[in-house]
Amino acid sequence: MSKRATIHLKSGEERRVLGGHPWVYSNELQAGAELKTIAPGSIVTLRHADGRPLGLAFFNPKSLISGRIITRDSATSIDTAFWRGRLERALALRDRLVGVPYYRLAHAEADGLPGCVIDRFGDVIVVDVQSAGMDAEIEHLTAAIDDLLSPRVILVRGDGPARELEGLTPVSRLAKGELEDTVPVEENGARFLSDVRAGQKTGWFFDQRDNRALIARLAQGTTILDAYCYMGGFSIQALRAGATQALALDRSAPALDLARQAADLNGVADRFKTQQAEAFEGLSELAQAGKRFDIVVADPPAFVKSRKDFHQGARAYRKLARLAANCVAPNGILMICSCSHNMPADELMRQASRGIQETGRIARLLYHTGAAPDHPVHPSLPESAYLKALTFAIE
Amino acid sequence: MSKRATIHLKSGEERRVLGGHPWVYSNELQAGAELKTIAPGSIVTLRHADGRPLGLAFFNPKSLISGRIITRDSATSIDTAFWRGRLERALALRDRLVGVPYYRLAHAEADGLPGCVIDRFGDVIVVDVQSAGMDAEIEHLTAAIDDLLSPRVILVRGDGPARELEGLTPVSRLAKGELEDTVPVEENGARFLSDVRAGQKTGWFFDQRDNRALIARLAQGTTILDAYCYMGGFSIQALRAGATQALALDRSAPALDLARQAADLNGVADRFKTQQAEAFEGLSELAQAGKRFDIVVADPPAFVKSRKDFHQGARAYRKLARLAANCVAPNGILMICSCSHNMPADELMRQASRGIQETGRIARLLYHTGAAPDHPVHPSLPESAYLKALTFAIE
Repeated sequence: MSKRATIHLKSGEERRVLGGHPWVYSNELQAGAELKTIAPGSIVTLRHADGRPLGLAFFNPKSLISGRIITRDSATSIDTAFWRGRLERALALRDRLVGVPYYRLAHAEADGLPGCVIDRFGDVIVVDVQSAGMDAEIEHLTAAIDDLLSPRVILVRGDGPARELEGLTPVSRLAKGELEDTVPVEENGARFLSDVRAGQKTGWFFDQRDNRALIARLAQGTTILDAYCYMGGFSIQALRAGATQALALDRSAPALDLARQAADLNGVADRFKTQQAEAFEGLSELAQAGKRFDIVVADPPAFVKSRKDFHQGARAYRKLARLAANCVAPNGILMICSCSHNMPADELMRQASRGIQETGRIARLLYHTGAAPDHPVHPSLPESAYLKALTFAIE
Repeated sequence: MSKRATIHLKSGEERRVLGGHPWVYSNELQAGAELKTIAPGSIVTLRHADGRPLGLAFFNPKSLISGRIITRDSATSIDTAFWRGRLERALALRDRLVGVPYYRLAHAEADGLPGCVIDRFGDVIVVDVQSAGMDAEIEHLTAAIDDLLSPRVILVRGDGPARELEGLTPVSRLAKGELEDTVPVEENGARFLSDVRAGQKTGWFFDQRDNRALIARLAQGTTILDAYCYMGGFSIQALRAGATQALALDRSAPALDLARQAADLNGVADRFKTQQAEAFEGLSELAQAGKRFDIVVADPPAFVKSRKDFHQGARAYRKLARLAANCVAPNGILMICSCSHNMPADELMRQASRGIQETGRIARLLYHTGAAPDHPVHPSLPESAYLKALTFAIE
């Protein structure tokens, strides 16, 4: 093993790390010329100011998060066997929680994979790398995945702002096997087709699994409007559970095409309609045309992409709640979701409530839920619980 | 209809009420000698400073919450038919959400019953009155319940600090029928016996229904420790779902007696043990004796009864998490609950995480859940979402 570079915390900056936090910010590190000689993504030994070791970390001088702690045991070798150990524990938890091999296999820091998520679609594994450290470790990681699961396909992809912040360029390459245009997904007994290469994120939003099941449990005999439907996860599962009609809105033609294919696969195509529309416009037009649905789900992309968008994004959630509530039939159900990291749950509640109240309708909050448990939260990163879903009954 | 007394908001204090908030605080009302002539619990007309009506409210000069808005329609008659209408909507929602007639039928402001909850145990109805207004309306309310459900028994009870704040003395009386010592409860397919007269609150905590189901889904083949077990809701449902052994801790002998009877009723008595102990002591002793359980649930009474108890209560949750985590077997599950109104979810997360981290164990938060949906939240009273349950996987 080559001798590792070392980074030192400033004196007095140990407390958060000792309390279990997995990150070190750039301003907490002792400056020094040698820091500049360490390549981004290197594995370094993190030490107290007095030299005592705190653990091993990925170091990235380009990121505000300069250190991402890998392990508290500074004597560990970081290799294929190490990552295999992490993956084994993540896998055992998923097999217990989900039961079918379609899930988020590893959820970044919470599963000991700093800045990296892995989604499993049966024998197709999609690795989404968002940190320079895991980018540098990708050969060990894919070898560990291959060793543990022997999948048919391993796709490594990554893009978006988090990767940019780490100084990384977009990546999309096959580490193993050949990929078809679409990959099957099974969720709550329903089947879908996902485009894991060109689709959003890894191609399927496993985080909504339990929220889709929640809506399905309420769906018997209802009509449902699925705004921002993507591949129809909410509406097709509702139809399988006994909904009489579904209308799925999305502005993406490829997504709607996959949604219609999924409706066919699940034998509910005769009750499934799609409409290509921007959701705010689509909801407004439906309300003006007097269309009402027993259940309305609105699961938009993040409206608050960064803190500076907060006020504008908050207003957008409020408007969405109002427009969506206008489409809810008397004594119906409205689920409003937010996947914005920068939109706290209490603020979403405030905006959604105000939006509904602007319609003059009486509402009760029935459920306040989050991501499915294959998206665990690191205890020191509660703010990483990005997904919120508020389910209201509306008179 | 007798002419109603009137209360006026101060100029500039309308905004919150117009936004849907159901309460008026004493400092928002115009003072005046006539206020003192209005009996606590009277129904009054709430008006803008300029005289325009805002709705009807319960008035209580003894409470900081001086006005509890009943309806925005000032011309409505408040009588048996009025409350029956409210109950009908509450009932329809429960029958849809729960499916069996064991639930919180009405949850105070969220169901349009200011300061009053109603629990249903089949043909036994328990009304818990916590406001002077509903106390004064109790004859109309029980008549409405009788009209709608024709129950065999209606018990009116109420005690505790909220009732004191309203200037009310404790009450416990049968409005209809005769009550047996215990009343059957059915939850997630399991059966229990509840003491609705002498038990805590209304005798059963329906709010934990979905959290008990969550634990049961993880229970196959596990051992479970049920701290603050009360009547064994968590552990007996886990045993029915395939847990191999359960140990239920409580310091109340009558609760443990009912828990053992429930274990018998559900055919799991051979795998169910009880131990009468204060939970902190019991957990410490079990950990010291090397006892470990695959699942540990800790569902204590409120540690933060008022804001002044906050720091002490927060420390108690932290200690509880530490003691409970010490009893969790490798790769086990820990659920920590808080029913303290004054313990925000993010603070509970902080304390529970710190408590677990003090044990040196690695944890992931799998679920952050709340009360079952028959305990809806009024959109303007998000702080009334009192129940929090954090479920961790612990390596």
